[in-house]
Order: sequence, then structure tokens, then C-alpha cells
Amino acid sequence: MKIIKGGITAPQGFEANGLASGIKNSGKLDLALVWSQVPATAAAVFTTNRFAAHHIALDKANLKGNQAQAILINSGNANCAVGKAGLDDAKNSTYAVGRGLKIAPRLVLMASTGIIGKRLPVEKIKRAVGILVKTKHKNKAGLAARAIMTTDKKPKEIAVELEISGKKIKIGAMAKGAGMIAPNMATMLCFITTDANIEARALKKSLGLAVENSFNQISVDGDMSTNDSVIIMANGLAKNKKIQNLDSRNFFIFTEALEYICQYLAKQIVLDGEGATKFISINVKGAKTKDQAQKIARRIANSPLFKTAMFGEDPNWGRIIAAAGSSGVNINPQRVEFGFGGSVVFKNGCPVKADYNRLKNILAEREIEVNLDLNQGRAEGFVWTTDLTEEYVKINAHYE
Amino acid sequence: MKIIKGGITAPQGFEANGLASGIKNSGKLDLALVWSQVPATAAAVFTTNRFAAHHIALDKANLKGNQAQAILINSGNANCAVGKAGLDDAKNSTYAVGRGLKIAPRLVLMASTGIIGKRLPVEKIKRAVGILVKTKHKNKAGLAARAIMTTDKKPKEIAVELEISGKKIKIGAMAKGAGMIAPNMATMLCFITTDANIEARALKKSLGLAVENSFNQISVDGDMSTNDSVIIMANGLAKNKKIQNLDSRNFFIFTEALEYICQYLAKQIVLDGEGATKFISINVKGAKTKDQAQKIARRIANSPLFKTAMFGEDPNWGRIIAAAGSSGVNINPQRVEFGFGGSVVFKNGCPVKADYNRLKNILAEREIEVNLDLNQGRAEGFVWTTDLTEEYVKINAHYE
Repeated sequence: MKIIKGGITAPQGFEANGLASGIKNSGKLDLALVWSQVPATAAAVFTTNRFAAHHIALDKANLKGNQAQAILINSGNANCAVGKAGLDDAKNSTYAVGRGLKIAPRLVLMASTGIIGKRLPVEKIKRAVGILVKTKHKNKAGLAARAIMTTDKKPKEIAVELEISGKKIKIGAMAKGAGMIAPNMATMLCFITTDANIEARALKKSLGLAVENSFNQISVDGDMSTNDSVIIMANGLAKNKKIQNLDSRNFFIFTEALEYICQYLAKQIVLDGEGATKFISINVKGAKTKDQAQKIARRIANSPLFKTAMFGEDPNWGRIIAAAGSSGVNINPQRVEFGFGGSVVFKNGCPVKADYNRLKNILAEREIEVNLDLNQGRAEGFVWTTDLTEEYVKINAHYE
Repeated sequence: MKIIKGGITAPQGFEANGLASGIKNSGKLDLALVWSQVPATAAAVFTTNRFAAHHIALDKANLKGNQAQAILINSGNANCAVGKAGLDDAKNSTYAVGRGLKIAPRLVLMASTGIIGKRLPVEKIKRAVGILVKTKHKNKAGLAARAIMTTDKKPKEIAVELEISGKKIKIGAMAKGAGMIAPNMATMLCFITTDANIEARALKKSLGLAVENSFNQISVDGDMSTNDSVIIMANGLAKNKKIQNLDSRNFFIFTEALEYICQYLAKQIVLDGEGATKFISINVKGAKTKDQAQKIARRIANSPLFKTAMFGEDPNWGRIIAAAGSSGVNINPQRVEFGFGGSVVFKNGCPVKADYNRLKNILAEREIEVNLDLNQGRAEGFVWTTDLTEEYVKINAHYE
């Protein structure tokens, strides 16, 4: 596998576009299109938030056939919590894309990010879709990646090339920030394209695994957005032998590449966090189940006390104990071992005499690892998060 | 029921004391004693944190007989996560109190708050206990209340008088801050005394109910301290007819007074929160179960996005939706109704056209109510919390 240029349009048969339709008052780019020259096998993972944005119901219905050919994405408006009109607004927007591209509307998916509780300006979108469709192009992946941004400081794209049964396969992707990280808009979106030939069930499974080990482990202020969406389209133009068997080597190679892409973008999202000065991996091993390991990692990641200590570069491990101990997981304090980076600070129920200057140096780095071993089993989990800074509060308290 | 002076020594037969034993380098008060002239019926609620401080194991053992006569409390050191020595340190401290007061050591309870991972300076404590015991006095409740403080801005005390079966009963209490609220020390402690005559099982039940509707609903950064403790001693000197029956009117009156005391102190703790500028009640009703109502309230209270919006006095109700929707409770967005104070902002799945200036005025107050009605049942719950401020981050990032 190698990293290549081209972002979301790197795979064969994909084009993209981005423009300013007027949804954002600032006049910044706010509408993006990704499309495949041929209908593609499609799969998606959506937020489980009970206030899911209205376009998600439409996407779920459209995805029943496991096919899609285009995705329309707007930033600046979440199309969430506006009542029944929200679904109509999404439909009218995707119908416009269908008409423009001369494809069935059910092949058009949609995603939105932005302010909650305001109607989508559908007329503006319809007007813009005409131009979007006409001027789409292979070399406009960057424009699309910028059009889905909200408070992100920079666009997030990647593409890779790999070989499957003798054929060159490409996967491209773009994403925008989320949650704690880009919390004003409170949404994580990711779009992935590939020219791989893969059966619908295998694609769904592969995406699920990749998302579980990447986007599902980041952030985390605990707030799951109403709009979080990850969508993949696989158009088969690479003409590889169809990936079908979930135990096959080809499925494994494809999934590994997809996971690489999702982890890369997830990390970019964390690094781009509002006010964040640190990228923190919390790694828990020796748990009885993966679920327990992740519960503890998430609990620590969500602790404002822990997050502020990381901002202050303060090796205050008492805050890790307090968070881990209150996760609800039945851990044994006598067995727990943990530290920062390679420096153990707690073992056998007691503090380890640690070199304070060494700890300070570890915490002075931009990337910090917190490693816990519960010594109770073989399962492990991780969460990637940021520190909590005064800048974060400033940005979010005085937003809009 | 009326509020009276005297704090923790207001009830008959109680004395207290507080001094600086040298646990805190600052030379501030750090050791307190509360004692009853006669053995008292006792009950307690402790943290469920898996890294519970070492004195908690000792207290639990001592409380097996449901009796206590003295409580020794230190601030400045949590006696937590120091290994097996921690229990010995707690024992040696309480033994010193037992010797000084000439009572059985099992009648002495202990509580600690402060830094995690450092041994208690037992020799200093033993020396101080001698003085503490000799100079204890009815009028030293205020000294005790100050000696248990860590980052609290002021001591928290209260006492009430009520009548039960023709006899005057007094209840006194003192507390210190917790969690998000006084997070450096990360502990909520509360000590309650009463001269009521009450059977052990009834006392335990009464305390459990009062704590559930007060301390268990505050804070909340989600971090449950390793040291949280609420302890009550009832010495029976008021000579009322013994409160026994959990369905009796007297049990109800006593519990109501106890709940009043706990709620008063819980509110003081929240109001004294580090960097906090707001006292926020999140009230959820119309839930299927109390547990679900509280889960949603807690989820909102723990959302940094919501908390920063409250600091900014920004009626950003999208953040309430995002938090409530991701609580894991199966709420129906079409039925949810919510608002700030008396001003509804969301109903029937749609935003309500709200008077923005009125909302701004509501949010400009020091006390803010967020009211949600799920319209799915009859259960309700609440959480009291604070906003999240730059000051909070500053205090906690650069602590020590």
C-alpha cells in the first residue's frame, strides 16, 4: 500500500466539486458534490443520536438497495431538529442533483453539517446544484474537501493505492472535524471512494471495522453529533476479482487499507481540535473485554480534570485514578499499572518513584501516550483525545 | 423546621475542633474532630470509585456495629493509592483518637481529602490529636468546618431544629466541595450530627434517600472522587420516641429535614465551584423511569459544549439536543419539549420562535434552569451543575 495524491477523486471514475452556494453568510465554500461515473456499491455508518439530522432518514432509505452514485454535502446548516420539513428539504436537494446528473434520485445521498434548528435554504441549493454538476471535475477533490469544512483549520484528505488479486485499487477520502474537536458545528463527516470491486455485505462489514477502530475512538467530549456520517462508494472500475468472503486475504487487505485511511483522518481531526495543544492516546490493555477497556479509556478521555492537567503538562496521575476508578468497570487497584509514555507511575497499588523531570519532558511533547494495563485479561482498547484549554472555552462560550 | 446556628455542634452532646497539624505545607487548618459525648448510631455513604481511599475500608469495618462516637478528618492528603500502608496509617490515626478520648478505636471513623498517592504524615497527626482532643469544644464547629476545606472559598455549615413526637430535635452538618467543583482535591465530604433517637436501619435509609436527592445529583464532571464520604451520627440525646418504622410520619419528617440539609450543602458546593459563574439546574420530567431522566440530565450537565454555552450566556439549544440525543435513552424527538426557565425553545420536533432578548436575560442570571419534558412517562430527575469557564481551565491546568 502506498499513499498517493488526488484525495477523493483518486480512484477511477470519480469526480468532485465545491462552491459557495450562500448557505454560509461568510461567502465561504459550503456545498460539495462527489460522484461516480457508474453506479457504485455503497455503505454508511450514521450517528446513533436520537435527534439524528433529517437527511439521515433519507440516506438510510436510499441505501436499502446498497447503491449510490452521488453525494451532496453542505456545510453551514445541519438540517436537524426543524420538524417534518427537514426531510422534504433533503429530498428536494437530492432530487435536484438527480435531475442534473440524469440519475435516479435514490442514487443520491446527502450529508449536512452546521447550525441546528434552521431550515436549509433549498432554493439556493437548487440553483447551486446546476453549476456544481456542470463544472464537476477529477481535479476538484480539494475544492470539495474545503467546502465541507466548518471550523476546521485545514482540509483533510488522503488517498492510497494497493494491489488486490493483481489489480491496482485506489481508495480516496475526505473528512471534517467533530465533537470536542470542532464542537461549534459538532459534526464529524467522512466520505470515501474506491474503484475496488467489492460485494455490498463485505463493503459494509469492512467500513464498520474501520470506523470502529478510528472515528469511534476519537474526540471525545462524549457529545455524539446529530449529524455524524461516514459514507463509502465502491464503483468496481478497478475490475479486481470481486471481494466477497469475509475471511479472505483480499477482504483483509482492503479492510486494512480502509482502516489506515480512517485512522489517518481521525488523527487529523483530533490534531485540528479547537484550542487543542495536545494529541493524547489513552491505551488500555489487560482488560477482560474490549468494551471494558474502551469504557475506561473513554472515561479518562472525558475527564475535564485529566484534560486540563494535560494542557498544564502536569503529571497529576491522581486524576487518572479517579477517572478510571469511576468508570463502572470492576478493576482491581492492586493490579493496575500505568504511566505516561514509557514511564510507569503506578504499580502494585502504589505510586512508583518516577523521575519528575522525565515526566515533565514526556508531557511537554505535542503527542502524549497514557498507557494502562489492568492485568485482568487480554482485551485492549484506545481513545484519541485532546487537552482542554482556555482557548477551547473562549471559542465555545462566545461562539456566534 | 427552622434553621438555627451552631453547625455540626448544634445538636446536644456534640463537640468539635480544628487545627493546623502540618499536613498542609501552607500552615492552614488541616485536621478536624467531631465527637459525641455518648456513643451514637452511625451510618455512611461512600464513593463507589474502585480506587477508594484507604480510610474507607477502615470505616466500613468499624461501621459494621452501626455505632460511632468520633470522626477524625484531615485535609491536604487523600490517603489514597499508597498501597497497604494506607490502611495502617488510617488505623494508627484513629487509634490515637481512641486513646485520647478513652473510647474503643472501632468507634472512631476517619475521612481524608487532598493529594492522591502520598503517605499520611501519621506522626504529625498523632501529635495534633492530643491537642485536638484536649481543646475540643461546643463552640468550635466553625473551626472544624474550616479545617476540612481544600480549595473551597468558604466553609459550609448548617443546622436545623424540628419537632418529633413532642421533642425538639437538632441536626447539624458541615461539608466541603467536590469534583468539577473543587476538582484539585476532587472530593466531596459531608458530616452530619443529630441528637435524634433513631434506629440504625432507619438512619441508614434516611441518609441514603437524602444523599440520592442532593449530593448524588450535583457537580458533575463525571469524575467521582476516590474519597467522597457522607457520615451521620445520631446520639439519641433528644430522647424522642425512637424513629424506626420506614413508613412512619416521624421517619418522613426526619428524612425531609435531612434532605433539606443535604440539598442546602450540595447547592453551596456547586455555588462555590472553581471558576464557576453559574448555578444550573437541569430538570428532566416525563421520562419512563427516574434513572432515564437522570441519565439525560447528567449527559447534558457533563457536556463541555453545553457548559461553555452557559458561560457565554448563549441560548445554543442545539447543544442540549446533541447531548440529550446521545444519552442512550430512547427518547422521541417529536415529543420532547424544552426551554430555559419558563421560555420554551423546542416543541413538537421543531424550534419555537423564541424572544431572543428574553432568553438572553434568562441566561444572564446567576441561576439558570433548563427544563426538559420528554412526554413519555411520569418519572423525573435533576442535576445541579456549573458552567465551564476559562478560569476553571486556568486553575486546573496550572495546579501545584
